[in-house]
This record gives sequence, C-alpha cells and structure tokens, in this order.
Amino acid sequence: MIYFEDMEVGAERVFGSYHVTREEVLEFARKYDPQPFHLSDEAAAKTHFGRLAASGWHTAAMTMRVMVDCLTEDRQAGLGSPGVDELRWLRPVHPDDTLTVTGRILEKTPSRSKPEIGSVRSQITVTNQADVPVMHFTSIVLMLRRPPSASD
Amino acid sequence: MIYFEDMEVGAERVFGSYHVTREEVLEFARKYDPQPFHLSDEAAAKTHFGRLAASGWHTAAMTMRVMVDCLTEDRQAGLGSPGVDELRWLRPVHPDDTLTVTGRILEKTPSRSKPEIGSVRSQITVTNQADVPVMHFTSIVLMLRRPPSASD
Repeated sequence: MIYFEDMEVGAERVFGSYHVTREEVLEFARKYDPQPFHLSDEAAAKTHFGRLAASGWHTAAMTMRVMVDCLTEDRQAGLGSPGVDELRWLRPVHPDDTLTVTGRILEKTPSRSKPEIGSVRSQITVTNQADVPVMHFTSIVLMLRRPPSASD
Repeated sequence: MIYFEDMEVGAERVFGSYHVTREEVLEFARKYDPQPFHLSDEAAAKTHFGRLAASGWHTAAMTMRVMVDCLTEDRQAGLGSPGVDELRWLRPVHPDDTLTVTGRILEKTPSRSKPEIGSVRSQITVTNQADVPVMHFTSIVLMLRRPPSASD
C-alpha cells in the first residue's frame, strides 16, 4: 500500500493516456452536455471550437479514468476527494486526440482532527498529442496515514 | 436571446432537478471512475460513503445536464466556459437521490480584449431531496454581449 507518508512534495509523474473517440464524445454530450458545439462539427464550426469538441466535463471524466487506473495499480490508500480548485479548460479536445495526464505534488497536510488521515494537493495537467495543455486543475485527495504496524 | 447585459448580479434561480439511478451511477463509474465505493454497496460500506455513492465527476456531469437544459430553453448566448473554481463534493450522492441545481450570479466582467464578449461568475449549488448541499462550485461562463442592433 502507498500511504500519505509516501507522497513527496515536488514529485512528478505521468499517470497515463486516453484516446478520445468521436462516438464517446457524442455519447457523453448527448447524455450530459448537449450544447450544439459538443454534438456536431457543423455547429462547432460556427464557434471558437472550430470542429466537434468534447464537453469539458467529459475531459475531466476521461482524466479521472486515467488517474484511477494508475492509482489502483499502485494500491494507493485514497479515501476520495473533497474537491478540486482552479479547473481550467484551456484548449478544445477533439475526436482522435490522445490525452496524457501528469501530476505534480504541491502540498501535503496531516488532518488536525483525524490522526489517521492526511490531504494531498496536486497540480494535474492534461496535454494532447501535440503536447499542448488542454486542461489543468488542482486536485485534493484524502489518504490514509501509514499505520504504526504497517510494514510495506 | 439572453445576453451578457441581461445577467443581474445577485439574481438567483433554480435550474431544475435530476433523479439519480443505480444503473447510471454504476455505468458512469465503470467507465470513468472505477473506485470500489462507486461500484458496490459492499465496498462503500467500508468507507465514509456508507453505501454506493456516485462519482463526484458524475455529480458534476448530471449538474451540467440540468443547467444546459435550462439555458437551451432560455436561448442564452453562452460561448462555453474557461473553467470552474472551488468545486467541492460536500456529501455523498446515492442512487435514488434527486438533485436540485440552483445558481446565484456573483460577478460580471466585460472582456477587455473582445468587446463582443463578457464573463459571468456564478455560485452553483446542488442539494439533495433532504435539501442538504452535496456539491457546489463557482462557474465561469463566457457570453455574447447584446449587439447594438438586437431588439430582444
């Protein structure tokens, strides 16, 4: 298991990548964000998106999937998240883009009220295949602290 | 059409509601956030979630759907969003919850570089059927300014 104590401020990592398909962009948009520029190239061409663009919430969801796959493999002692700060959609995400998710640990804080828990703030950056940042946010994750008896 | 000029700082509105189903919680989690507490009651019972809880990103997506339906009906001149601030998942969202989305306009700022655009910051709050807040965030939305020739 990876605990709060194992997180090192300043450490950077690549969580992984996600290939964006047109079918998935349309499926998410129809269900959760049916604005015209998320539903057709024709409508998107009339906006700054230029052509069909993924919902920003879809980009966030794809990013989460990349992070969860990575953290599950790590057996990281995560307890969920109270939220995120300064989420910014910087550039459109289009079908056939490949997104890469990286993280850098900004800060870690032991809980004052719960000695078994700590919180870790990280800068999460998502870039496309041209290495252009398309989204970033600050994540806040609660993690278990290493129990006194834990050996690994 | 509703333009930037029509947005009034301090104005509050109810965007609408969304009923959360178990099937949808599981479908979203399998695809985008397969952490154990989003996949089964048994795993969630071992955590502070207590029972199956929706991914926070799913709650955000359902919230977006409610807002888009409302704004489409209004014919609001929205141009997409550069991001959100201080997104907080305050309480778990469970299957069979009914979420209600409300907004309050905090601030509006004409663009300095683009005279045809303004940005509007709003506090978005999502409550469940017990009127308990489950999520809030500050939205930032770009809107068209009323063209000199527009009559409505």
